Amino acid sequence: MRNLNADNITAAVNEQFAGCEDPRLKTLLDGLVKHLHAYIREVQPSEAEWTQAIDFLTRTGQMCDDRRQEFILLSDTLGVTMLVDAINHPSGDPLITESTVLGPFYVADPPQANQGEAIDWGVEGEPLFVEGDVRDAQGEPLANVVIDVWQSDSEGFYDVQKPELDGASLRARFTTDDQGRYAFWTVTPSPYPIPTDGPVGKMLELTGRHPYRPAHVHFMLMAPGYETLVTQVFAENDPYLDSDAVFGVKDSLVMEYAQRPAGQAPDGKHMESPYRYLRYDFGLKAS
Amino acid sequence: MRNLNADNITAAVNEQFAGCEDPRLKTLLDGLVKHLHAYIREVQPSEAEWTQAIDFLTRTGQMCDDRRQEFILLSDTLGVTMLVDAINHPSGDPLITESTVLGPFYVADPPQANQGEAIDWGVEGEPLFVEGDVRDAQGEPLANVVIDVWQSDSEGFYDVQKPELDGASLRARFTTDDQGRYAFWTVTPSPYPIPTDGPVGKMLELTGRHPYRPAHVHFMLMAPGYETLVTQVFAENDPYLDSDAVFGVKDSLVMEYAQRPAGQAPDGKHMESPYRYLRYDFGLKAS
Repeated sequence: MRNLNADNITAAVNEQFAGCEDPRLKTLLDGLVKHLHAYIREVQPSEAEWTQAIDFLTRTGQMCDDRRQEFILLSDTLGVTMLVDAINHPSGDPLITESTVLGPFYVADPPQANQGEAIDWGVEGEPLFVEGDVRDAQGEPLANVVIDVWQSDSEGFYDVQKPELDGASLRARFTTDDQGRYAFWTVTPSPYPIPTDGPVGKMLELTGRHPYRPAHVHFMLMAPGYETLVTQVFAENDPYLDSDAVFGVKDSLVMEYAQRPAGQAPDGKHMESPYRYLRYDFGLKAS
Repeated sequence: MRNLNADNITAAVNEQFAGCEDPRLKTLLDGLVKHLHAYIREVQPSEAEWTQAIDFLTRTGQMCDDRRQEFILLSDTLGVTMLVDAINHPSGDPLITESTVLGPFYVADPPQANQGEAIDWGVEGEPLFVEGDVRDAQGEPLANVVIDVWQSDSEGFYDVQKPELDGASLRARFTTDDQGRYAFWTVTPSPYPIPTDGPVGKMLELTGRHPYRPAHVHFMLMAPGYETLVTQVFAENDPYLDSDAVFGVKDSLVMEYAQRPAGQAPDGKHMESPYRYLRYDFGLKAS
């Protein structure tokens, strides 16, 4: 294993992994070395470009903390996240809701909220009532499904991006009732740029790509015996539906966020001002 | 650009880079997307594996500081660094010294030292006298070449890994004299493991790879009109010459670190104890 050159180094590296006792790990690393070396042989990076790549990856890692995940943003903006999603959740059955990217703003164990509760704690915006139900592939309603919801405010910011907020907002956990229903009040989200103050934002800027995502609400649905569903429901007519910076839009996830006049809302509440209404029914796949 | 799946997402991502006005950056990113997606399509990572990969990259970035570069270690241990080196410095002319990896322990602007000076500041070990000259491809000596030298101590540690040291040690900058010569006293380096307390060390452990490098002294030679040479001179008979964790050994860089008895050293110094002697003559390529 001396005098390695561009022609023989890939085999030499793979040979060093020959003793790996975890066959899956060996497959992942052998494939990584093969494809990474093929990339390098193709683009022939200069040493300065290699140094820039090391620096980019380092800064991407150092941008991460418990409120920011820049490597997920990188994966998202290179289409990697959606590719992994497509491989793991091929679409097919129209009764099963399609999945899309988790995004970098999910926070585990959000505050529990009650059916119909408003989750716009500490924020203002156009009211939005969201409701729907959760069913299995046979169309039977599913009770006790845990639904985590999170979204931006009407200016495009998540709670974790707003240090002035004391605790969670526009982020909560619901549980479906015995007819599989869920409902909550929130504010209408807006399109927003993914965070542009880090290496990924710089990459988008240097390549002439805009950083915007169409307005959406995130959902994660969890129930024993069913695949966890990670998805988003996008707003119809959003200007960024066909150029989502993270490649996440699917037609089945685009819905009208319907404008409704002041008056009685679907849950009986009297609204003094106009509001919006979104209904989305989910279908879960048995695991 | 909706409803992307494993078959059409790569083209969709590349299309988003179509507006990039820097053609080299576009080539680098188009190639990255193509090869990265091909890797993912081949190994079909689960979502848990994707999450582990994100976490691995994040921890690798967060391991880096001004004394530690874990992404360079990752590049080194995957053979990427040597591949980039091979592409940029194909070997050929036997009068030109071959290059090898920079490694993660280089520090810019080391302390200037004088011809023949000892650089074993604050460390102990078997004395080693190193000398040689620097010539061009026609064999003419090159004066005023800047030579940065750095190496581990006899226990395998660099100064930057030893917080108890006050300043640089076994690390210095020399300049060749008017006959192209350089010379210095140091201590004999030893084989050592690359740092194993980070994500890269864990990767080696999980895949059954040892982390050792054969003993060596690093050199970086810089002179106007010549390509900067980054290389290492390895010790003959080292047990790790054929399994270097970073794939950096070349036969032309392996030399005897000759044992010499007590007595007069080549520079006239009287040695009370045995020491070692290394002579290495460098050849620089015109740029």
